[in-house]
Amino acid sequence: MILSKLSKLVVIGVGLIGGSFALALRRADLVNYVVGIGRSRENMRQALELGIIDEYSNDIVAALSGADLVLLAAPVKQTARIMQQIAPHLENYAVISDVGSTKLGVVEVARTYLDKHINRFIPAHPIAGIEFNGAKAAFAELFQNKRVVLTPLQENDQHAVDYVEALWQRCGAKISSMSPEQHDQMLAVISHLPHMLAFSLMQHIQTQSLSLSNGDPLEMLQLAGTSLEGMTRIAASSPEMWRDICLENKAALLAQIEAYQQELSILQAMLSKSDGESLQKLFLEAHTLKKKWMVSRNKT
Amino acid sequence: MILSKLSKLVVIGVGLIGGSFALALRRADLVNYVVGIGRSRENMRQALELGIIDEYSNDIVAALSGADLVLLAAPVKQTARIMQQIAPHLENYAVISDVGSTKLGVVEVARTYLDKHINRFIPAHPIAGIEFNGAKAAFAELFQNKRVVLTPLQENDQHAVDYVEALWQRCGAKISSMSPEQHDQMLAVISHLPHMLAFSLMQHIQTQSLSLSNGDPLEMLQLAGTSLEGMTRIAASSPEMWRDICLENKAALLAQIEAYQQELSILQAMLSKSDGESLQKLFLEAHTLKKKWMVSRNKT
Repeated sequence: MILSKLSKLVVIGVGLIGGSFALALRRADLVNYVVGIGRSRENMRQALELGIIDEYSNDIVAALSGADLVLLAAPVKQTARIMQQIAPHLENYAVISDVGSTKLGVVEVARTYLDKHINRFIPAHPIAGIEFNGAKAAFAELFQNKRVVLTPLQENDQHAVDYVEALWQRCGAKISSMSPEQHDQMLAVISHLPHMLAFSLMQHIQTQSLSLSNGDPLEMLQLAGTSLEGMTRIAASSPEMWRDICLENKAALLAQIEAYQQELSILQAMLSKSDGESLQKLFLEAHTLKKKWMVSRNKT
Repeated sequence: MILSKLSKLVVIGVGLIGGSFALALRRADLVNYVVGIGRSRENMRQALELGIIDEYSNDIVAALSGADLVLLAAPVKQTARIMQQIAPHLENYAVISDVGSTKLGVVEVARTYLDKHINRFIPAHPIAGIEFNGAKAAFAELFQNKRVVLTPLQENDQHAVDYVEALWQRCGAKISSMSPEQHDQMLAVISHLPHMLAFSLMQHIQTQSLSLSNGDPLEMLQLAGTSLEGMTRIAASSPEMWRDICLENKAALLAQIEAYQQELSILQAMLSKSDGESLQKLFLEAHTLKKKWMVSRNKT
């Protein structure tokens, strides 16, 4: 697809993801002018200094005037308010997309507030989070070889879908398409549940240190190897963001926690019976899938 | 402590840990001659070629003759058999140590089989596992800034304890000392439980792919970010080794799985009630401990 250069990109929420998207499009020479909108004046100043945006603005009407692409990259919880604010001022030709980690809720809100613009709202989720936030963490290469999931709607104009897909590809990303429902269920498995396990594991260590290590978890953690470091890396993620993701994807996540509890109970039962054979079989299956995944990842 | 050079080190099981220990002592010029003993002829050949050992031997009597340090670095399950074999042939001055991931079982076996040598058997656990095995994975720097736990026994000769401690320090390690009981309980928290969670998580993904991804977990895993990669890195560990660790530390591990299930249930209850405030508080506590740990780790 030959992409024409955007005359004006508006990024609402210039954090790691929104900022990196702007930088990636700039590097690909696909955008003329970038306007940033955001709550933190300090962050917006940094975004300007870092050359992520050309201007920051509190004037939504002026910002959206002439904007051919609007990216919603603020926390998911603010989506309704933002859509309500921007809807009346969007150009008829404006394409709108987002970067939310959950999609069903965003789609519902979009259907409520975006009116006639819904046919050019293409929901997206770039899977490229790291445990750092803010404009200062943004970099143009963030999406290189990362996956971006699009969850197009029945109402969508196919040209707008193709356009958003092509833009992400030019950021270096690989595209998957699926329904919002399927996205939320799959992400509950491979992202939301693992984050819950990491948070719970740190809590568990804190609790256990009361009886095993005079209440000082850091003393016990001195004994931890790199394995625990890797397991708990994502416990450093933003508590507010994860509260919102949990609540947004509550039903799917609850189902996953329950199913995972059952998986753990199976292991527990094997260990109770000292059933070494079954334990080894379970570990081997897990080991084999992990190895296969590593191989397939290195290929792509 | 001024260390005299070992005239003969015998390493039983020349894998990642045993091999790296030999290499580290060689580099520190603390050993004259290294004999390797092991089941796999191919691995022993590699160890010889890589300069880890000077000789490999099936003749335990000859190997132990003149040996002033014997390191047991074979899988924990073989400890009883090995101790039975070596006990009659150990020099009176020989110091014996091991590298087992669990300590209570090893100590019990040592008390049964090592007879008068028990006063120079210093149980140790270098926390330096990576997901690769065998002599070819060994390297002299493996223990640099890693933790080694010693669990000295009442029977131990203090000179032998000090000596083993000093050797590990010369390998670059930091030493913690505690009872075998405390070691096994703490390790259940910070190592054994996390491994169970990683194995279970891969199993869970496999199971969930049946309903969500046409039975192909790799398709779903395409959507996974680096967070899941980190969470499941240790699922690539050896199934046999982890079967043995589980069975060796069964009671402590079962208690940890149960306590962790409760921790998960707390989170589940908060989510069921859409209690965002409590969720955020829990995530923040976990986040804070993780950050503190990262800071303390960078300091040391």
